[in-house]
Amino acid sequence: MSDTITIRAATDADWPGVWAVLEPVFRAGETYTYPRDIREESARASWLGGEHTRVLVAVDAGPGDIVGTAKYLPNHPGAGAHVANASFAVAARAAGRGVGRALGQAVIDAARADGYRAIQFNAVVDTNVAAVRLWESLGFATLATVPEAFAHPTLGPVGLRIMHRFL
Amino acid sequence: MSDTITIRAATDADWPGVWAVLEPVFRAGETYTYPRDIREESARASWLGGEHTRVLVAVDAGPGDIVGTAKYLPNHPGAGAHVANASFAVAARAAGRGVGRALGQAVIDAARADGYRAIQFNAVVDTNVAAVRLWESLGFATLATVPEAFAHPTLGPVGLRIMHRFL
Repeated sequence: MSDTITIRAATDADWPGVWAVLEPVFRAGETYTYPRDIREESARASWLGGEHTRVLVAVDAGPGDIVGTAKYLPNHPGAGAHVANASFAVAARAAGRGVGRALGQAVIDAARADGYRAIQFNAVVDTNVAAVRLWESLGFATLATVPEAFAHPTLGPVGLRIMHRFL
Repeated sequence: MSDTITIRAATDADWPGVWAVLEPVFRAGETYTYPRDIREESARASWLGGEHTRVLVAVDAGPGDIVGTAKYLPNHPGAGAHVANASFAVAARAAGRGVGRALGQAVIDAARADGYRAIQFNAVVDTNVAAVRLWESLGFATLATVPEAFAHPTLGPVGLRIMHRFL
């Protein structure tokens, strides 16, 4: 973890900074299945989620601005609620500073503390090589790749990896 | 398909019959990740879904009552919306009459007609052998089994299969 990046729970006041990280990622449409033209209020409702959703932010200790965010929640309700699902986004300007790794490790630690037994990703875009490598380095394995499940804006249909690790 | 079972789109008036099929399935907790104590209104909101959800019912042509139901919707929004997700339930009293197969074939045909390119199941309980065999016979393959992802009420932690077929 970078010594200048702090991970903490998000507050309502963080939303503008969180949205500033998410919006270019969602608009690009290369790594998420959100509609590329999603409205801010829909994105807010989706990212902040319901009562079981936990949201983290990565804060650059110098300027104090938000450079990344993550959320996790039960992947299924009821009898599947002991497996978490998680999502991540990092500001392009903060690339290479270990923000994604710090958020990933923070989610692993927090989900374990919350009592989850595993984390499952449902939709890691197969061409998002940096993400795949990061998750593998944090102990995730690809259980399967759903073929042609993601309509990449420039590469066409590519696979969506389902990745998993126990906690 | 049984010659006495008709598959058609559900209407609002069908909800009591649909709920009569779903409630014992959800309460048993052996095949779905819905909370076992889910309230009817939550179940209704979940099963009937949003604008992109399509709901079917299987009707016994004799008495005219609903003996099964299915729903399908985009498995992901945006760049993943060309893959459908589907769910099914059949009344215990109608077991062995081909209701599940008729609903499965109807969803395959309807989803294809709607422009979907594939169907993905996210959570087929590994011990639900009848369902696994049915989906395999309808052309679905297991892409992966997420280990210990389902807390079965009597069998303990069992796997959740992710199954898929192109349309």
